[in-house]
Amino acid sequence: MERIRVIEIKKSVFEDNDRDADRLRAELKEKGVFLLNLMSSPGSGKTTTLIQTINALKDKIGIAVMEADIDSDVDAKKIFAATGVQSVQLHTGGMCHLDAEMTRQGVAGLDLEKVDLAILENVGNLVCPAEFDTGAAKNCMILSVPEGHDKPLKYPLMFSVCDLVLINKMDVLDYFDFDLELCKEYVKRRNPNAEVIPICAKTGEGIDLFARWILKQIQLWKGEDNYA
Amino acid sequence: MERIRVIEIKKSVFEDNDRDADRLRAELKEKGVFLLNLMSSPGSGKTTTLIQTINALKDKIGIAVMEADIDSDVDAKKIFAATGVQSVQLHTGGMCHLDAEMTRQGVAGLDLEKVDLAILENVGNLVCPAEFDTGAAKNCMILSVPEGHDKPLKYPLMFSVCDLVLINKMDVLDYFDFDLELCKEYVKRRNPNAEVIPICAKTGEGIDLFARWILKQIQLWKGEDNYA
Repeated sequence: MERIRVIEIKKSVFEDNDRDADRLRAELKEKGVFLLNLMSSPGSGKTTTLIQTINALKDKIGIAVMEADIDSDVDAKKIFAATGVQSVQLHTGGMCHLDAEMTRQGVAGLDLEKVDLAILENVGNLVCPAEFDTGAAKNCMILSVPEGHDKPLKYPLMFSVCDLVLINKMDVLDYFDFDLELCKEYVKRRNPNAEVIPICAKTGEGIDLFARWILKQIQLWKGEDNYA
Repeated sequence: MERIRVIEIKKSVFEDNDRDADRLRAELKEKGVFLLNLMSSPGSGKTTTLIQTINALKDKIGIAVMEADIDSDVDAKKIFAATGVQSVQLHTGGMCHLDAEMTRQGVAGLDLEKVDLAILENVGNLVCPAEFDTGAAKNCMILSVPEGHDKPLKYPLMFSVCDLVLINKMDVLDYFDFDLELCKEYVKRRNPNAEVIPICAKTGEGIDLFARWILKQIQLWKGEDNYA
């Protein structure tokens, strides 16, 4: 399992995270690596969603994954075992978010040759990660049905900074009081430009739409149309 | 609705939160108010659990509630409407946790006469709230079935600081890959003294056990046996 590394992330020394994030974004652009920052609450299904999505995309583009976690390294192992793509585990040492410099430490642990898409699975937290620009080209989040449709009202910043909101665990919609249309309306209230895609990582429902969204974003970002 | 107030919490100036928390704990002890700090991920069912539990206890003891939220005030309104007990909404202004001084600002908004139990519903977050002692007599958290049984492995500090772990949404156990016994084992690994109670806030299952746990803790804390 040589393709799985564990990196102990050090606290950032940069005062100005926004400027540092812009710097990282420019560095990644130069390398042709599109960085997607994936955020959510604990247990909303980030890792399972990633596995499905990577398997849908890995024959088309080169992918690498950074799994941020406070302590364990189960996620990077899971991703590698299920997809075969390179995965690094970032140990945040109790920290509740990743900023640009911490992300850069993760990026440094990846072999970026032939990588078009790097995915950062951020710490499971709807508050702090939204406050720190990681240098990603796009931000995406997962809200799962059991968490409730009112979350855009309660965690406004998270929904404001995300370009895409995936609504996961659609298979259990009947067992929860979750109003999908109302949720979409609440998301739009926070960010009129955000897209919403209902998915079920367990059954694979909607994963094709998420995969297509990613390809389209990379295409727009590269200013090319090689991924049609 | 004069019993619902919204308090805009100011950032703490105290350097030493642990010492300040001990001070608040002593102040509350003197007033005979048992403070319970309730933590969880977003959407795990804190407010619904509180409503059920308060209704099971309010004829036996005096209760007041502090609802921490980044922005909205729906929770305090919900609690008051469903239970009639006094509720203050604490706006954290984007902050991801409450510390002792912030909790003190909330306590100052309560009428503590005839209050035996004050409940603090902390910000929905499994990371930061665990790092800050609020001055509570006991810490309790909710993990809901859809979040997965592996969470004690991934959020170690949260499970270490909690005296009680409620496992909520037991009604949907059949629809998720959640191993209750394994989860209990993981909890014990983080904190051998933590108790675990499976509940379902929606149906009321296990709420009697949680209510009894609270009464017992108050009894032990008071060194009395008036709440048998």
